[in-house]
Amino acid sequence: MASDLKEAGGLTRLFVTSALESGASVTLDQGQAHYLLHVLRAKPGDRVLVFNGRDGEWQAELAAAGKRGVVLTARARTAQQEDVPDLWLAFAPVKKTPSDYLVQKATELGVSKLQPVFTRRTIVSRINDERLLANAMEAAEQSGRLTVPEIGAATTLEKLLAAWPRERAIFFCDEGGEALPLADAARKAGDGPAAILTGPEGGFDPAERERLRALAFVTPVSLGPRILRADTAALAALAIWQSVKGDWR
Amino acid sequence: MASDLKEAGGLTRLFVTSALESGASVTLDQGQAHYLLHVLRAKPGDRVLVFNGRDGEWQAELAAAGKRGVVLTARARTAQQEDVPDLWLAFAPVKKTPSDYLVQKATELGVSKLQPVFTRRTIVSRINDERLLANAMEAAEQSGRLTVPEIGAATTLEKLLAAWPRERAIFFCDEGGEALPLADAARKAGDGPAAILTGPEGGFDPAERERLRALAFVTPVSLGPRILRADTAALAALAIWQSVKGDWR
Repeated sequence: MASDLKEAGGLTRLFVTSALESGASVTLDQGQAHYLLHVLRAKPGDRVLVFNGRDGEWQAELAAAGKRGVVLTARARTAQQEDVPDLWLAFAPVKKTPSDYLVQKATELGVSKLQPVFTRRTIVSRINDERLLANAMEAAEQSGRLTVPEIGAATTLEKLLAAWPRERAIFFCDEGGEALPLADAARKAGDGPAAILTGPEGGFDPAERERLRALAFVTPVSLGPRILRADTAALAALAIWQSVKGDWR
Repeated sequence: MASDLKEAGGLTRLFVTSALESGASVTLDQGQAHYLLHVLRAKPGDRVLVFNGRDGEWQAELAAAGKRGVVLTARARTAQQEDVPDLWLAFAPVKKTPSDYLVQKATELGVSKLQPVFTRRTIVSRINDERLLANAMEAAEQSGRLTVPEIGAATTLEKLLAAWPRERAIFFCDEGGEALPLADAARKAGDGPAAILTGPEGGFDPAERERLRALAFVTPVSLGPRILRADTAALAALAIWQSVKGDWR
């Protein structure tokens, strides 16, 4: 008998690239096909949820599985398309495991774009874009999101600021010096697009901090009296922004 | 020449059990002694910071290292004793790596007590208290805290609630059903002691939710429209509480 496929967190959700409408054929990538057939042991007729970031969420059933791949058929829309708030996270990449963790958590917390940025004290010199995207996709699937956050091409802080869209307010998590608590700064800010900017272990260097503080679209903010690891700071800032300006209100 | 011992995050800080006052001898445990001598390659006269949760933070210098252990001498107080806000985290334990992460992050975010609690859907059946404490100590050392969070003995939700000190408000992170956003609930609450309560993957079961919602000292709260992993929920809740009621204001 056909059944709804479930994981620990609830119904299995898959991010797909195909267009979704009633009766549409949905092709899975190799990893998803393997997961469905060999981990969840799906049989024809079994149902999962799919979303593509554009057409909402759909119930889809396993139509065919063969050498040419696995195809689902979209049956009924289960949720209208909905975007997360327009909040970017620009972050100095940290080591592999904390970076994985950061990307997963930021996706759950509802960030719209993840922007890796190299600062002077950033030790990590290479970004694995595929790994970053895979972590974001998995977290989007499990958190019930209808979009996967956009992944910006890694760049330097200098280039990022030079090309920055000025209408997007940057809340710059600054460990040293005077700064408003993030909650207060967010409350005072307008309702436009925003970004959280967090540094590497050891923070931004003095020249970077000076440069940031001189920019009109940058507000330095504080995250309390303790020293937070880079990934903790990013997650705390996202949660607070969501509670003040985002969709947690 | 004697020097200040440093790590990536700044001056090396060690949590010790000895009383601290000018001239006091401070004995290190085996792990700390090994770290100081063989990882940081400390020499007599080298300086670190020490704290014991009672007497503030002190600069101390390496006095002797031999078969009987490593002894430091406390020289000058560098910070007065200061406590974190009176905020507990009662959490359903999750798997090993997320639990390590949760304990570290919660310590950085400034929790005063970590209370593992077994709920009906908790899969983990055993708590490694030593591992929990080691993670909390390390995070306290690196975050600049002057205390290590207390670790409560693991217990069941039922027993925890039966013995609960009623003056301590519980903010119960409830995934289903109507609930105020945590920021609003915290703002409305009094200034007394508080606790965040988070469930396991899959959440609390219906009977537990009903029981919790019936208690006068429990306020169900929401953490936005997405499904958060257990550890993400705990960290987000701690950050929001700190920004509304804690020492991030």
